[in-house]
Order: sequence, then C-alpha cells, then structure tokens
Amino acid sequence: MNESLLLTNGLFKHSDAKTAHGLVRGSERFSISGVIDHAATAGKDAGELLDGQHRNIPIFASLQDALSQVPAARNLIIGVATVGGKLPPDMLIQIREAIHAGLSIVNGLHEFLTDKSDLVALAEEKGVTLTDVRKPQPRAALHFWSGEIFKVTSPIIAVLGMDCAMGKRTTARLLTQAMRRAGKKAEMVYTGQTGWLQGGKYGFIFDSTVNDFVSGELEHAIVSCWKEASPDIIFLEGQSALRNPSGPCGSELLISGNAKKVVLLCSPVRKYFDDDAHWGEIPSVETEIAIIRLLGAEVIALALHTAGCTDTEARQWKKEYESKYALPVLLPVQEGVDELVPTLLAMI
Amino acid sequence: MNESLLLTNGLFKHSDAKTAHGLVRGSERFSISGVIDHAATAGKDAGELLDGQHRNIPIFASLQDALSQVPAARNLIIGVATVGGKLPPDMLIQIREAIHAGLSIVNGLHEFLTDKSDLVALAEEKGVTLTDVRKPQPRAALHFWSGEIFKVTSPIIAVLGMDCAMGKRTTARLLTQAMRRAGKKAEMVYTGQTGWLQGGKYGFIFDSTVNDFVSGELEHAIVSCWKEASPDIIFLEGQSALRNPSGPCGSELLISGNAKKVVLLCSPVRKYFDDDAHWGEIPSVETEIAIIRLLGAEVIALALHTAGCTDTEARQWKKEYESKYALPVLLPVQEGVDELVPTLLAMI
Repeated sequence: MNESLLLTNGLFKHSDAKTAHGLVRGSERFSISGVIDHAATAGKDAGELLDGQHRNIPIFASLQDALSQVPAARNLIIGVATVGGKLPPDMLIQIREAIHAGLSIVNGLHEFLTDKSDLVALAEEKGVTLTDVRKPQPRAALHFWSGEIFKVTSPIIAVLGMDCAMGKRTTARLLTQAMRRAGKKAEMVYTGQTGWLQGGKYGFIFDSTVNDFVSGELEHAIVSCWKEASPDIIFLEGQSALRNPSGPCGSELLISGNAKKVVLLCSPVRKYFDDDAHWGEIPSVETEIAIIRLLGAEVIALALHTAGCTDTEARQWKKEYESKYALPVLLPVQEGVDELVPTLLAMI
Repeated sequence: MNESLLLTNGLFKHSDAKTAHGLVRGSERFSISGVIDHAATAGKDAGELLDGQHRNIPIFASLQDALSQVPAARNLIIGVATVGGKLPPDMLIQIREAIHAGLSIVNGLHEFLTDKSDLVALAEEKGVTLTDVRKPQPRAALHFWSGEIFKVTSPIIAVLGMDCAMGKRTTARLLTQAMRRAGKKAEMVYTGQTGWLQGGKYGFIFDSTVNDFVSGELEHAIVSCWKEASPDIIFLEGQSALRNPSGPCGSELLISGNAKKVVLLCSPVRKYFDDDAHWGEIPSVETEIAIIRLLGAEVIALALHTAGCTDTEARQWKKEYESKYALPVLLPVQEGVDELVPTLLAMI
C-alpha cells in the first residue's frame, strides 16, 4: 500500500489535526509511516500521543528526519483541517521540499495546490502528483436529490454532534467495525475529506460541494451503497452541528438522507462552539434532542467527547449522562461502542 | 436601462418560471420589455397573467415576434428555474437564434452557457456576452463565517417558507418597499439568482456557493449591508424550506445570519413538497414554528401562498389562519404587506 507521511507542523495535539488523527486511527487508502510535527513531540508514537494506544507510527521533527527514517515514503498528506480551509503558510515551504524529494502531495484543505502554478510546474518536473481532495466536482458529475432514498430499506443511522471535532467520524467508523464484528454487513457513508483519505468507498465531501447538490450527492452515496453492498445497516458521518453558527448542518442527513435514528456526540467539557466564547455557548442536549425529533428522527444514544478528561472522569460523566438523559451513553475512545450493538442488531 | 426579453418557452404560468415572475414584478438591473412564451399566452400582458396587475409587458409567441416588436432589446434572460437547474433542451435553439440576432444572454441555471464552446464562439463572433449568474465564485472571492454578524445592531428578519416557490423573495421585497414608504431605511439581502437579476446590491447566490462558505457569504452580505447602508431594518430572503428533502435550508439564516424574527410563508392549498406526493407531505405550521423557536428565532407573522385561490377564498384562509395561530397573517399578492409595518416599526 501507499507508504505515506502526515504533515501536522506542530499542530498534532490540536483538534485542527483531526485529519491526521483519523489517519493514525486507520486508513485503507494510505499506509501511514510517520508524522512530521515538531521537535517537542518528535520521538513519540503518534498513536500513544493521540489516545494512549501504541500504533508504531513515529513522530519526526522535520521532513529530513522523516525521509531518512522512512525512505520508502511516496506521499505527504496534509494532516490538518483549519477553519476556513486555508493552508498554514509555513507548510508551503515543507510541501515544496517534499516535492523536491519526490513525494506526491495529498491536500484536504480548501486552498488548492493545483491552483499554485509554481507547485504544479515543480510537480511535473519531479514526476509526482498533487491531489486536492476538496476540489469541487463539476456540475455534470453531480446528482440532484430525486427521492430514490425512500426505496432504501436498510436502517440508516446518522452520527451527529453538538459541535465540530467531537468524534463523529471516529464514532461512525467504530460503530461500523463493531457491527461487522457482530457478523453484520455494515457500511459507513463518509461526508468529509478524511473519510475519503481513510479509504471510504461510499460518500462525498459535504463542505466542498456546491450547496444545491449536497442533498443529491448524499442521497446518491447512500443509494449506491445500498444497491451495491446490500448492507444490513448504514452509518452516516455527520458534519459540523445543527446549531454551529459557522455552518449549521445535520438536517440534510435526517431529511434528505432519511436517517431515522441518531447517535449524538456531545461534550461535558466543551462550553462554546469551536471552543470560542465569541461563537456562543453550545446549547443543551435536551433542546438538540427536541430539534432532532421535530426533524423526524430519534436519538438512540449519546456518545461523549472527553478531551482532557482522565478515564475516571470520563466514566463519571458517562454515569451522569445516563441518568440525566435515560439513554445509552458511549465512551468511544475509552470503551469502544460495543455496548450499542444489541440495540442496533434489534433494528435489522 | 438594459432593455431585456424574458424566455419562458411555454412555462410562464408554471411555478418553474419564478425567475420571470420576479422580473415581471420589478427589477432595477434590467428593464423588461417582453416575455417569449407560447402561442397560447401570446398577446396577453405578463403582469395581468401573473397576478391581475397590468404592467405593460407583452407576451410573444416567438423570438422573431418579440424582436420585431421590441427592436431595442439587448438581452435575453432565461426566465425559468428548473429543479436541478438544467436547461430545457428546446431553449438552446432559441438562445442560439438570439445570439445570432445580437442579444446578450443572461442565465440563472446551474447548466452554464459559458461551458458550451460553440455558444462561446458564436457570442464572441457576434460581440455579445454570456452571463452565468450561478457560476460558483472561486475560493479567493469567498468569505468564511467569522462571528462579525454579532456586531450588527439592526433588526434582521428572515423571510422563510414551508416549501419552495411560495413567495419568499416577493414577500421580502414587498416588506422592504413597505418599510421604505414608512420612511425607514430598509434593505433586503437576496440569496437567489432572481434577487441578483432584480438588481439587489447585497446578497449572494446560496445554492451555487460551495457549502462550507454559505454561512460566511451570508454573514458578509449582511455585515456589508449594515456597514454601508446603515439600514433601520434588514430582510433576508430565505431559500427552500427547513424540511424540504431536496435541500433543507433556513437554519443558516437564523443561526449564521442571526435573524431573530421570521415571517413564514405557508400554503393552505399545497399539500406536498414541490407539489409531488413522492417528496412527502409538508408538515404542520405548528411544528415549523416550534423548530424555528428552538433555532433561536420567533415567527412574527405568517404570509399565505394562495396560488389558484379566488380573492374571497384567500381572505377566508387569512381569517382561519389568524384565529388558528394567533399571529398576523399576510396576503402579499392580494393585499400587500402594510399590515405588518407597525409591528416592524416597533422593533426599530
């Protein structure tokens, strides 16, 4: 498989590096051989730093260090998803160096490498490729919503969150894997660039799609998945949050994607949207459940985002949320999601 | 001003011709001199056929007829907004003829004339322009949501609807005009191609914007309007509907656009989304008001879409809705919107 390095440039421990975090957790498209981050994290294992689980993915301080240790690397993947999708300027220097060293570049930001004529020329000269994962599809490749979604008979579960970067994709992935272990054909429909980078077969990139075609692309991904893979259950990766002011999102999954059940990520520790007081307080879980109900779907479980909590604290929050909301409460990072499998099996 | 013809090709009486309907109602960007529709409607006045109000805009059966009667015409505007934004194939023949006759073409569909190399070549040869209103903006021209919206001190009123094509844009326009007549600086922020065609100064085209930038473009339009025009009140044109499966929309206006008040278009006569049983029933007004409340805004009035009703029937519906919902109920087409002016004045 494609041996690849991740570039996070000192951001590995920040939630902006969620693209890298997803790829450290697993990818069927790329084999991750190392992370280029910073002198402060160099020498550590990326998996251990992420969630305590050793994954044999070393962190390096520089591109040179990485290339000397992993000479077989063929790709450099930009491992950050910044707000607004702009490329951190200091990364451009390392991208140029990497092309010089013969690496192809994979970029999931809105700022496209293929728009930079000097990089395009350099890549041609070196015989490597520049892949802009978020480059919008042309009109002719896009689908408009048709109503075909109503033919899908597999249960569709949307994994939504009350803010960005709370673990929606990871939870959807864990649920898919757990249902497969339980002997069922489970599929995940991705909606972000990391889902594509992880090797997802069905999905589209929500935020780089022209708005009028979001619903149709979502429907097309679900219907294709259902027709081709005959899944027993389908999990949809949510984006943003129903009330995140920088881009409210979720009703598309419930209404256009006809997801009737929801696993909702929420955080006992994060108070403000995007951790920024100016963006406003994240509203209550109760009102989120009420909106989801009015949008025609039912929350079947909560899943907790517990960044910065000890395991003991996380388990205390779980107990508190279980008794407060009378719903199953998952700790995806600490405990996985097997607890929800019987509930999901009963829906099939 | 730009003398222009509208092309509806037999669809003038259909709701797909809402682009034409808007321009017949008024535009500050183009002067509408006639409509090219069909032999069955030719000879009538477009205003009279639309809502009984004579506007001195004749309907013609063909481009030839129109050009012989309106030799000064300089533009042909595609007057339809089809689902999915595809160009009806028979229109292409007339577009080609119009370019031959020296007209510039203005197109609000997702299918772009500038992508058709034969049309581009012909337009160059004839010295006319092809304008694709919905062509997406490049990344560099787009704004990401920043939170600057929270500085805006003018009341922001969103005009939402429970389905497409219920009169949201027309109602927003009428409200803006009514407040101006009442001596206030009122501005409308458009969100569709017709708003641009009508000459709107502030706004963007929601459905042709890459999804991640919808909230930021909306915020930028509102903030620019507020800074430059110092309005006493701002009306936002809604798109689609909160629960329309082909593209749920509205929470962006309430949350990212921080609209705290809503005028809600609803229809006592339309039962299904897009008039199509397969798309599902339009839910109740009560639940729509409840969702809007949970999204942080208040419905201050309903406005009725009454296509196909007599004036008497429309007034009966108004009474019924007033008593059922204990809210002011507007009949924008039959009565205008002056009834709501005192309520709006009290907010300033």
